[in-house]
Amino acid sequence: MAEDEVGFVTMGSAQAAAQPAPEIGVGMLGYGFMGKAHSNALKTLPYMVYPPPAVPKLVGIAGRNAEAVQTAAQRYGWQQAYTDWRALLDNPEVQLFDNCGPNNAHAEACITAAQTGRHILCEKPLGRTAAEAATMLEAVTRAGVKHLCAFNYRFVPAVRLARHLIETGQLGEIYHFRAVYLQEWIVDPAFGMVWRLNKAEAGSGALGDLGSHILDLARFLVGEPRQVSAMAKTFIKERPTREAGGGTGEVTVDDAFAAVLDFENGALGTVEASRFCPGRKNGQVFEINGSLGSLRFSLERLNELEVYWQNEAVRDTHGFHTVLVSEAYHPFWKYWWPQGHIIGWEHTFIHQFAHLFESIVNDTPVAPYAATFDDGYKNAVICDAILRSAETGRQQAISY
Amino acid sequence: MAEDEVGFVTMGSAQAAAQPAPEIGVGMLGYGFMGKAHSNALKTLPYMVYPPPAVPKLVGIAGRNAEAVQTAAQRYGWQQAYTDWRALLDNPEVQLFDNCGPNNAHAEACITAAQTGRHILCEKPLGRTAAEAATMLEAVTRAGVKHLCAFNYRFVPAVRLARHLIETGQLGEIYHFRAVYLQEWIVDPAFGMVWRLNKAEAGSGALGDLGSHILDLARFLVGEPRQVSAMAKTFIKERPTREAGGGTGEVTVDDAFAAVLDFENGALGTVEASRFCPGRKNGQVFEINGSLGSLRFSLERLNELEVYWQNEAVRDTHGFHTVLVSEAYHPFWKYWWPQGHIIGWEHTFIHQFAHLFESIVNDTPVAPYAATFDDGYKNAVICDAILRSAETGRQQAISY
Amino acid sequence: MAEDEVGFVTMGSAQAAAQPAPEIGVGMLGYGFMGKAHSNALKTLPYMVYPPPAVPKLVGIAGRNAEAVQTAAQRYGWQQAYTDWRALLDNPEVQLFDNCGPNNAHAEACITAAQTGRHILCEKPLGRTAAEAATMLEAVTRAGVKHLCAFNYRFVPAVRLARHLIETGQLGEIYHFRAVYLQEWIVDPAFGMVWRLNKAEAGSGALGDLGSHILDLARFLVGEPRQVSAMAKTFIKERPTREAGGGTGEVTVDDAFAAVLDFENGALGTVEASRFCPGRKNGQVFEINGSLGSLRFSLERLNELEVYWQNEAVRDTHGFHTVLVSEAYHPFWKYWWPQGHIIGWEHTFIHQFAHLFESIVNDTPVAPYAATFDDGYKNAVICDAILRSAETGRQQAISY
Amino acid sequence: MAEDEVGFVTMGSAQAAAQPAPEIGVGMLGYGFMGKAHSNALKTLPYMVYPPPAVPKLVGIAGRNAEAVQTAAQRYGWQQAYTDWRALLDNPEVQLFDNCGPNNAHAEACITAAQTGRHILCEKPLGRTAAEAATMLEAVTRAGVKHLCAFNYRFVPAVRLARHLIETGQLGEIYHFRAVYLQEWIVDPAFGMVWRLNKAEAGSGALGDLGSHILDLARFLVGEPRQVSAMAKTFIKERPTREAGGGTGEVTVDDAFAAVLDFENGALGTVEASRFCPGRKNGQVFEINGSLGSLRFSLERLNELEVYWQNEAVRDTHGFHTVLVSEAYHPFWKYWWPQGHIIGWEHTFIHQFAHLFESIVNDTPVAPYAATFDDGYKNAVICDAILRSAETGRQQAISY
Repeated sequence: MAEDEVGFVTMGSAQAAAQPAPEIGVGMLGYGFMGKAHSNALKTLPYMVYPPPAVPKLVGIAGRNAEAVQTAAQRYGWQQAYTDWRALLDNPEVQLFDNCGPNNAHAEACITAAQTGRHILCEKPLGRTAAEAATMLEAVTRAGVKHLCAFNYRFVPAVRLARHLIETGQLGEIYHFRAVYLQEWIVDPAFGMVWRLNKAEAGSGALGDLGSHILDLARFLVGEPRQVSAMAKTFIKERPTREAGGGTGEVTVDDAFAAVLDFENGALGTVEASRFCPGRKNGQVFEINGSLGSLRFSLERLNELEVYWQNEAVRDTHGFHTVLVSEAYHPFWKYWWPQGHIIGWEHTFIHQFAHLFESIVNDTPVAPYAATFDDGYKNAVICDAILRSAETGRQQAISY
Repeated sequence: MAEDEVGFVTMGSAQAAAQPAPEIGVGMLGYGFMGKAHSNALKTLPYMVYPPPAVPKLVGIAGRNAEAVQTAAQRYGWQQAYTDWRALLDNPEVQLFDNCGPNNAHAEACITAAQTGRHILCEKPLGRTAAEAATMLEAVTRAGVKHLCAFNYRFVPAVRLARHLIETGQLGEIYHFRAVYLQEWIVDPAFGMVWRLNKAEAGSGALGDLGSHILDLARFLVGEPRQVSAMAKTFIKERPTREAGGGTGEVTVDDAFAAVLDFENGALGTVEASRFCPGRKNGQVFEINGSLGSLRFSLERLNELEVYWQNEAVRDTHGFHTVLVSEAYHPFWKYWWPQGHIIGWEHTFIHQFAHLFESIVNDTPVAPYAATFDDGYKNAVICDAILRSAETGRQQAISY
Repeated sequence: MAEDEVGFVTMGSAQAAAQPAPEIGVGMLGYGFMGKAHSNALKTLPYMVYPPPAVPKLVGIAGRNAEAVQTAAQRYGWQQAYTDWRALLDNPEVQLFDNCGPNNAHAEACITAAQTGRHILCEKPLGRTAAEAATMLEAVTRAGVKHLCAFNYRFVPAVRLARHLIETGQLGEIYHFRAVYLQEWIVDPAFGMVWRLNKAEAGSGALGDLGSHILDLARFLVGEPRQVSAMAKTFIKERPTREAGGGTGEVTVDDAFAAVLDFENGALGTVEASRFCPGRKNGQVFEINGSLGSLRFSLERLNELEVYWQNEAVRDTHGFHTVLVSEAYHPFWKYWWPQGHIIGWEHTFIHQFAHLFESIVNDTPVAPYAATFDDGYKNAVICDAILRSAETGRQQAISY
Repeated sequence: MAEDEVGFVTMGSAQAAAQPAPEIGVGMLGYGFMGKAHSNALKTLPYMVYPPPAVPKLVGIAGRNAEAVQTAAQRYGWQQAYTDWRALLDNPEVQLFDNCGPNNAHAEACITAAQTGRHILCEKPLGRTAAEAATMLEAVTRAGVKHLCAFNYRFVPAVRLARHLIETGQLGEIYHFRAVYLQEWIVDPAFGMVWRLNKAEAGSGALGDLGSHILDLARFLVGEPRQVSAMAKTFIKERPTREAGGGTGEVTVDDAFAAVLDFENGALGTVEASRFCPGRKNGQVFEINGSLGSLRFSLERLNELEVYWQNEAVRDTHGFHTVLVSEAYHPFWKYWWPQGHIIGWEHTFIHQFAHLFESIVNDTPVAPYAATFDDGYKNAVICDAILRSAETGRQQAISY
C-alpha cells in the first residue's frame, strides 16, 4: 500500500505489474440495480485500477428468477447462474460473497457465507434492524473474514477529500454536520406498492434507504452521535398494488424522517431524508462547519467539493471554493483522466472493490476508509433510535 | 388598494398623486443597525413608492447616548433627539412608534406607546419570552392600534412570490419545509461579549436573532407547527469581556439550535440557526416541497427564487428554474427598475413601511402579508418550546 | 481622502462631520429610467455616505413633457421644473449639470453646460459617434470643469475589487478579457419601434447601449485595445410603429454585435452584446484570466466576484472562490450593512456621485476610478471601429 | 434501430438478445489518453449497451514504444501488440481501424486502412490542415467504408438533448451561438515543450485541440458558418525542452484564438479557445439563443443542461431550468442508472462506439448524429480560415 503525495492511501500504481495479480473468486446475489453497478465495477477494475491488487473471477450469480439471472450471467460474464444462493455458496471457487439482494435477503445469506469462510461485501442497510445486523456482525467477526458494508459514498473522491481535510485537522473543531438525502419518486399517490414500501421486506423507508447513507457519512466525517431526536412521516398510507386484481396495499415504512443529533465531540447534527421532494433527483447534500472552515457536497455534482477557509491568506477574496476534485493528486484520480474530465456515480463501486481487494490480498483492515459490518451495525442502531424517538417523542441515547 | 396583473396586492400606482398623501408622524427608538435601515426606508419611501400611501414625518429619535442620538438625528433628518423614549412618546406629533431598540427595550416602550394610542412597528423578536410578548400583544389589542412585528423577509419579492405560489395552490399539498439561518461571526473564541450573548438582554441567542426569522417564514409560507423536538448548543461558554479590566463573561444563550417540526397540515419541518458557520455570511436558506413542485430561496441571492414544477409541459426539460424575481409583474417591482437590475436587502424595509402606511391610512389589516404582534407572540411561543425541548429532551406541543 | 485597511480609496468616514458639508447645486436633464436612478442617488447620498463630501441641492430638472417633468420635480423634490434645458442652465444655482437625456440630447446640452462653467455628469454613451464625443471632450477640457461619463459599473463593489486585484498585480500578466452583455427585450418581432432602435437618435443599438459598458470595463480593467475585428447583426429589420396609424418603421441600428480585441499589453479580448437572448435579463458577464489567477463577474449577481488563485497555499482545494463582496473592508461597503446584507444595482450611482462630489470639493481627479469624457470619447472611438470592421470585414486599428 | 418515447434514436433495447450479436474486429493505433478511453469504451459497451449492436473483438493495438504497447495490450486485453500500424493492418481480422495516434499519424494510417477496406474511427482533428483532411475524406469515400471523426461531445446526453430541442424547432430561429473551450495547463512558462506545441506534429494549438470541438458543436447544433473573423495569440513563444541537454524550443502553434462567425442561417457566433485560463480545468461552455428559448452547457457539469423557454406557461416563474439530464427518457440514459446517478466524461465514447457499431451492422448512416470524415474535413476548413483571418486581419469566407 502506497501513499501519494498528499497522503491519500492508494491501491496500485501506474507502472506495469511486476507479477501477475492474484485472483479472487466472486459470487454475487442479486441482478438488479446494484447487481448491474457491482458487475460493472468488477469488470472495469482490472484495467482501470492498474495494476490491480487482485483480479476478480466472476464465478457465479444467484437470483430467484431463473430467466433473469441467466440473462444477467450472460450479459456480465458470470460463469454460472444460480436460483438459490445456497448453491452458489456451495461452489468452492467463491472466495468473496457480494450480497446485492433486497434487505430481507441480507442476513441469512451473509451469515452462511461467513460460516463457510467467505469474505463478504453486503449492500446497505446491513440488516433491517440493529438486532438483525448484530447477528451478521457476530458471524463475520467469529469467522475472521473480511467484511464491508457498501456505503459507497465514502469512495466519492470529493467525500474522501473531505475526510482527509477533517482528519488532518485542517477544518479545526467540528461544530455542525447537516445532511439531507432527498428524492422525488413516490410523490405521486398513483405510484404503486413496491417492496421498498413494506416494512417486512425493507425494514424502513427513506430512513434505511437514503438516511442510512448520510448517517454513515456523519460517522465517517464527524464521529459518533450520542443522542438523537427525530420525527418520521408516512404521507400516503395506502397505495395501489401492482397485482392483477387491483386494490391497495398499506405503506408500512416512513416516507420521510428528520432528526437532530448530538455528537460525542460536541457537534450538532441534522439529518433528513425523503422521497417526496419534487425536483430532487438524487439530492444528497451535506455541509460541515468547523472552527477553521466549512465543506459542502452535493451528490448530483459529485466531482465538486465546496470549501471555505476561515483564515485564508488573501482576505479580500475569502469565499467558498468550488473545487473540481479531478486532479491527479486527488483521491482515486490516478486511475482516471486529466483534470476536468469528470467521472460518474458508478465509479464509487470500482474504488470500493479495489479497497476491499487490497484488504483481502494484503490482509489490511477494511476500516476506516470503507465501512465494515461494524459500521453497518452501528448505522442500524442509529436508525432504530431514530424510529424510537419518532414514536415516543423523546430523545434517544445511541448505545452500540 | 389595487391588484396588479398577477394578483399581487400593491400599495400605490405609477400615476401622479390625485391628492396630497397624508402625513404620519414617526418616532423611533434606536440608532444602530436597524435604526439606519429604518431611517433609510422612511426617507426613500415617499418617492420610490409613488404616489405614497402616506408621507412619514420624522418627528423624533430616541437613544441612550446623547451624542450618538444627536448625530443620528442630524444625519437622517429627525427633527428632535431624545435620550429617553418616554419624552419622545410625550410628543403628540408621534403617531407611529418604531421600536428599533435592543430586545430588552421592546416591551415597556411598546406597551406605553400602545397605551397612548400610537401605532407600533417593533423589531423582532417581539419579546424575550412568550410571556413578555403576550403582554405586548395584549396592550396593542386593547388599544386598537395597528401593530407590526418587523419580520422583514416577508417583504423580499422572491419570498412574497413564494407565498403567492403556495396560497394559490400551485405547489399543491405541502410536505416539507426546511430552513437554516447560518452566520459565522462568533466562531472565533477571541470574539468578546456583546449584549446579544447575554440572556437577560437578548432572551436567546441564534434562536431569537436568526431562528425567529425562519420560524416566521415557516408560519407565513406553510402554516402552524403543532409539535417540536430540538437541541441547542453553546459551543463557547466563556468569552473575553470588552471592558477595561479584562476578564471573561459567561455566554448565557444558545450559539446554535436545530429543531424538527410537525405542522398542523401534516408537513415535516426542520429549522436550524447558528453563528458558528465559517463562510456563511448571511446564510438564510429555505426549501419547500409540495405535491406539485418545490421552491428554494437564499437570502444572499435574494433576487432569485428557484422553482420546480412537477407537471411542467415539456417533460425533457424539467428542472429547477432560477427565477430572477425582477419583472414589472413581480411583487413590489413596479416601484423599482427594469428587469435584472437587482435590489438589495434594505428594500424590504421600504416595502414593509409602505404596507403599514397603507394599513394605517385605509384602516386595512396588517395581517397576513406583514407579521403582527400576534405573529410576534406566536413566534415567541415556538422559541420557548424549542428551548424547553432542548432542555428536557422531549417533544413539545405548540400551544398559543 | 482616506484609505481603508486594504487600500481602497474612500470618500468619507463613519464619524460625525466636523463641519458642515459644502452644497453643490445640481440641474438634471431627463426624468426617465436614469433620471429616477440619479435622483434617488442624490437623495440617498447625504445620509448613507456619511459625512458626505458634499450635499446636493436639487435645483432644477428639465424635460420636454411639461406634465411629466412637473411630476418628477414634485416626486423627487427638485425645486423647479423646466421644459427647456437652456432655461435650466440659465439658473446660476446650477453648479453640476447631470445629463440623463437620450443620446441625441447629450452633446449640445453638455457643451453649453461646459461653456457656462458647470461640472458635468453625462450618461453613456457620451456621443452617438466619436466625432460627436470629441466635441464634448474638447468643450469640457477647454472649460476646465470636472466631467464624468456615467459608466456606473466601475462603482459596483465587486468590479472595483477586480480592479484592485489587477492593479496591485495579484492577477499577474493579463492574457484574456471576455465579456458579454446580453438582454432579451426585443426578441419578439411584435415589439414596436422605440428611439433606441433608430440610428439618428441612438447612434447605435446593442453596441452603444450595452457594448459600451463592457468596452469601458475592458479599458478600466485590462487596458487599451489596439485592434478590433467585428461583426454586427440586425436580425429584425422592420418593426411596427407605436403610432396611431400603424405601419412599420425601419430598425437602423445593430441588434447584436461581436468583436475580438487585441490589447496593447498583448491580451486577447472578446466582447459581445445583444438584445436577442431569451432569459438573459441583464446579462453582463465578464471573465479575466491572468498568469496568477482568474476573475469572473455577473451583473445579475453583482454582490459576488469569482476568483481563482493559481498558486494558492492549499493545493487540494484550488478552485474558484465565490466571494460575497460585502465585508466592511470591501470597496464602498463602509457605507452599507453588515456582511451578507446585499446591495442593489442603484447603489452604483450613489458611489459614483460621491466620487464626483469628492473630486469637485477637493479638486482631485475624476480619473481613473470614474470614467471621464476622455473615457467616453475613447469608448466611442472603439464603437466606431467595431461598426467599421463589421461593414468592411477588416480588422481596424484603434486610434484615439 | 428503435425510437424511445421522446423520439431519441436508440441503439438497442433492455430485453435480452434474441440472437448473438455480430463481432467486429478492432485494431487500434495509440495507447495514450485516447487509447485508454477508447479501450475502456470497447470493453464496457457489450454489457452496458445491452443487447449490443455488435461485440468488439480486440484484435490488436499498435504503438511506437514496444514496451508500452505491450503493457497496454496486456492491460486492456488486446490480443496482439504491434510497433507498426502497417503490421496491424496486415491482420485480416481487423475490420474497424481506431486511430488514437497523434495528429501527424492520422492521415497515412487512415488512408491505408480505407484502401484495405476497413471502417475507420479517427480521433480529431482529422488532419492537420484542410488539405490533409481532404485526402482522408477522399480515401474513405472512394473505399465506401464507414467513417467517424471522434467529436465525442455529440454523445454527451445533454448535448444530444440540445440537438433534439433545436432540430424539433422548439428553440425557434437561432440567433446566437457562443462557445469557449478554456484550459489552464500551459500558463506556467516553465511548462516544457510537448508535441502539441509544435505545428509540424499538431497542425495547430488550442485551435485544433480545443477549438475544433466547439466548431463541431457549432455545426452540429446551429449549422454551417459562412464567414469568420479571428485573432490568434502565442503568449509564450519559447519554452524549455524536455531533453537532457536543456535549451528551449519554439512554440509554433496558437496558445489561444478567438473568432466571430456568421452562419448561413443568419446567426451570429463567437468561439474561443485557450490553454492560458487558470482555474478552467476543462472549460467547454456554450450558449445558444433562439427566438423561443436559450440553452447553456458546461462540460465540467456535463450531466446538466440549462434551458430557458420564452413562452412558458407560468409567467411568474420564467427562468433558466437546470435540467439534470439523467431520466430514463433522456438520450442514452436507458443504458445507465436511475435518475440523478450521474455519468462521466468517458461515457461519451461508449455511446459513440455503439452508434458506429449500429451503423456498421445495419449499414445505416453515421451522420448526422456522429461526425464523419466529411465533418472532420469541414472542421479543418474552418480552422484554416480562422488562422488565415488571424494572419491577414480580414474576414474569410468558409468554402468547403
